[in-house]
Amino acid sequence: MFITLEGPEGSGKTTAVEAAVKALQEKGYEIVRTREPGGTPIAEEIRNVILDKKNTAMDPRTEALLYAASRRQHLVEKVWPALKEGKIVICDRYLDSSLAYQGGARGLGVENVLNINLFATENTWPDLTLLFDIKPEEGLKRIASNANREVNRLDLEKLDFHHKVRDTFLELAKRYPERFVIIDASKSKEEVAKNTLDTILNRLCK
Amino acid sequence: MFITLEGPEGSGKTTAVEAAVKALQEKGYEIVRTREPGGTPIAEEIRNVILDKKNTAMDPRTEALLYAASRRQHLVEKVWPALKEGKIVICDRYLDSSLAYQGGARGLGVENVLNINLFATENTWPDLTLLFDIKPEEGLKRIASNANREVNRLDLEKLDFHHKVRDTFLELAKRYPERFVIIDASKSKEEVAKNTLDTILNRLCK
Repeated sequence: MFITLEGPEGSGKTTAVEAAVKALQEKGYEIVRTREPGGTPIAEEIRNVILDKKNTAMDPRTEALLYAASRRQHLVEKVWPALKEGKIVICDRYLDSSLAYQGGARGLGVENVLNINLFATENTWPDLTLLFDIKPEEGLKRIASNANREVNRLDLEKLDFHHKVRDTFLELAKRYPERFVIIDASKSKEEVAKNTLDTILNRLCK
Repeated sequence: MFITLEGPEGSGKTTAVEAAVKALQEKGYEIVRTREPGGTPIAEEIRNVILDKKNTAMDPRTEALLYAASRRQHLVEKVWPALKEGKIVICDRYLDSSLAYQGGARGLGVENVLNINLFATENTWPDLTLLFDIKPEEGLKRIASNANREVNRLDLEKLDFHHKVRDTFLELAKRYPERFVIIDASKSKEEVAKNTLDTILNRLCK
């Protein structure tokens, strides 16, 4: 089973999922916890090009192609092998992030970005996508108060950008209701963690 | 006017075009001679990931996406600005190389690779594509005898690969007869250079 986590930085998805993973492992499930580029050297190299703060001249379409390339390599080297062994793969961000950030917020068009990602993923869709939904103002506030985390180029985008990201995520959730579950990330840590675990268990027991 | 040069390594396209460029400049044409990644830092970084000999685990679709990303950045930073200034841009390898190498020879499918390249280029097609056609056996022989040139990862592919590349280039020339001109690269250096210049001049005077 392939599970992806989506939503903005500051939505608390990492914390929530860590608790869920622990609980699932105690129940005997074999979990592979990953995020692109997932420690695969080629995907890491690609990611470094994307996130390099000095690369301000990067065109949005270049960025979208690089994300798709990194995604491909991560699938081939890490996700597919784990799924083949029957493990549960839980991946921070996947195709929907490209659709929301590049397709929606950067204005490249969701269909255009989907198109190159279908090439990259050969139609590998998640079985379950948890969307940690939170108002951009609140998410950014949380990031700013977290001194342990370095603010990267995407964080620095204007608030309007983050609103577009959120709107596109919510549209995607409507478009793919069979795999999307929206988690209200404005709730307490404990509630978010509980909802996350319940949602995953619910899907596993189907 | 946007001119691209296609054909295998060892087909002598660089030598032939250098002579043509000189002659064109003497006639007063402003020429921008380039090749991807064309000295644009982001495209260079992407190219380094592709050509790194240690990256043997690279999946063919990752490679195709990286070429498209490098192409995009080179277009945005170098080709489009020069074309806008009315210059003649002559570019070593472009979209057709991806179609022939990744689409044809690596078996990803010409239509699939075309698809991601239409995203990358926003339908920027060359006005003229010179295909320097030569039998793979002969091209590779020339490379081997040229001690000044380092043999890269692509050169090391098997002969069958290079046959598929050639076949796909010839199919593309049939598919796009309005922009393709085939130059017989098995002829003498002088003849190839003359045919190259004549073909460009012929197109410029149309």
